[in-house]
Amino acid sequence: MTATAKQTPSDLSPIEHLLSMAADDMTKVDAIIRERMQSSVGMIPDLAEHLVGAGGKRLRPLLTIAAAHLCEYGGEHHFKLAAAVEFIHSATLLHDDVVDLSAKRRGKKAANLIWGNAPSILVGDFLFARSFNLMVETNSMQALGILSTASSVIAEGEVQQLAGLRDIEMSRETYMQVIGAKTAALFAAAAEVSPVLADSGTEKQNALRTYGQELGLAFQLVDDALDYGGFEIALGKSIGDDFREGKMTLPVIIAYANAVQNDDKEAVAFWQRVIVEHKQIDDDLAIATNYLIKEGALEATLEAARNHIQNAKSALDVFVAEDEIEEWKTALIRLADFVVSRVS
Amino acid sequence: MTATAKQTPSDLSPIEHLLSMAADDMTKVDAIIRERMQSSVGMIPDLAEHLVGAGGKRLRPLLTIAAAHLCEYGGEHHFKLAAAVEFIHSATLLHDDVVDLSAKRRGKKAANLIWGNAPSILVGDFLFARSFNLMVETNSMQALGILSTASSVIAEGEVQQLAGLRDIEMSRETYMQVIGAKTAALFAAAAEVSPVLADSGTEKQNALRTYGQELGLAFQLVDDALDYGGFEIALGKSIGDDFREGKMTLPVIIAYANAVQNDDKEAVAFWQRVIVEHKQIDDDLAIATNYLIKEGALEATLEAARNHIQNAKSALDVFVAEDEIEEWKTALIRLADFVVSRVS
Repeated sequence: MTATAKQTPSDLSPIEHLLSMAADDMTKVDAIIRERMQSSVGMIPDLAEHLVGAGGKRLRPLLTIAAAHLCEYGGEHHFKLAAAVEFIHSATLLHDDVVDLSAKRRGKKAANLIWGNAPSILVGDFLFARSFNLMVETNSMQALGILSTASSVIAEGEVQQLAGLRDIEMSRETYMQVIGAKTAALFAAAAEVSPVLADSGTEKQNALRTYGQELGLAFQLVDDALDYGGFEIALGKSIGDDFREGKMTLPVIIAYANAVQNDDKEAVAFWQRVIVEHKQIDDDLAIATNYLIKEGALEATLEAARNHIQNAKSALDVFVAEDEIEEWKTALIRLADFVVSRVS
Repeated sequence: MTATAKQTPSDLSPIEHLLSMAADDMTKVDAIIRERMQSSVGMIPDLAEHLVGAGGKRLRPLLTIAAAHLCEYGGEHHFKLAAAVEFIHSATLLHDDVVDLSAKRRGKKAANLIWGNAPSILVGDFLFARSFNLMVETNSMQALGILSTASSVIAEGEVQQLAGLRDIEMSRETYMQVIGAKTAALFAAAAEVSPVLADSGTEKQNALRTYGQELGLAFQLVDDALDYGGFEIALGKSIGDDFREGKMTLPVIIAYANAVQNDDKEAVAFWQRVIVEHKQIDDDLAIATNYLIKEGALEATLEAARNHIQNAKSALDVFVAEDEIEEWKTALIRLADFVVSRVS
């Protein structure tokens, strides 16, 4: 009955549907986030509010909450871990925006452009430290291990991405390592901590870690395709940021590899100029996008994303049908499909 | 006998003496630091090695080791916590140098000037995350709570300091809050985690936290006085950095307050110009130093440091004389005295 009553209304996306299923829980998570970003040093809540108040999808804490339901966790600690996950994510966003010299975040002016780099760095540090305060309160050393390991892996991924800027020779394997670390590791940890709290056993723990990891990979692949705008555009997503930074993503890796293989001298020279020499003029984004489409590089990137979504969905097979669990499992499967459906 | 054999040789400073007492332990800490700063992403160990390899006094991990001896801790976990403390300190140094636009660190070119701001930020994040990996391995949730709380307090102190830049009206109370947070909190946590590991009880835990906190306050007060160079200069310490940044420290707070009280219009105008308007010319550092000496502001700052050193030493009264303990207690008391003896 509950399942019927809560079926996806046609006007809700799968993520909105999942958020509506988790509405009461997410209200609790939000309350913890707002309480723990407070400080007597006024610049901290001001800057944190600018970022956190701008919304964002809260996708990572939502994974923690959904996974807790899937594991029939009966406690309260998942609220704090979900908030901790969002704090880690917020800290990395603040630092990323300084690293990338970003102008916009979540459709608003990026914090570094309002307060400057220094407060963005330090408030990021504050939120990161607070995330560990929250974890300590849950008294789960295993969850702490998972989230602290994910945090160091994220930083490694960010540094590896930075080291690979303008490296037109970056391999697909290296790229997958980068996005596995910088993006998927936190998705994986967010999903994995709930079966740990619920003491669900290693099979379910592995399944949810895999779901998060594969979902995160697909999420980043789609994001990297969307940066070239060859698709119906997701709301609020700006175009060409990766290209302008000389960031190597799978579409470019594929297009460049094809150009080399086909001995397309003009295309090779184009990528060398815009990425390696980092000399770009106004029309170059459009030219790049045309190359990507011509080489099928955007479609190939989405195909890779779809494969990871398939892996994510399959991982949930270990959860067997019971009414309550089935509802959350279905919602997580729909969420996975939705990640690649963002592009037409 | 041991105590006699290990008495401070006249050619060793108290910190060198303490380091020689803890030499075997510090070798183990150093091995952990070097092992855990490794990563398959080469830029991470390169940048970390630049900072860690430049030496530094390792004062904070030394506190953890000395406190462990004082508490007759028989385990191995203090090595990892000492390394974790040094990682937290290293992360804050990397971020501070970006925030302060520093040119030098430990007598070498600052990492941000060699690799750029982005790697300094991200490698700082990496070291910070790795510090929590180390803590998790000690399985002490209480130590994790102490060090994660200290980490968020440090970030608060850094933001408060930033918000107070060029605020000539900053109160002495606010300044003490800032240095209590940005500097003393980690000294306190470094000393406090060892009695926690040793299960020494709250009296000894409080005593060592107080020792660390008071030592940290004195350390920063002396550092802030040394920035004006009115004393015999400690090796490698550069002069005038705080002044050039418009950073409010106790010497300036005292000198400005005296100028206002004595209605010294020339001095008030000077401080308004160089700090609030932040307009400085070549001779201003010398003029500022003259004002500080004339107003007794450097001497008053050192007097405050001496009081905190007295508090630090008194806190160790709870440790009663046994040969082994007495030796470490004496070394920690001498270390405290040494902090203010750095200036003549």
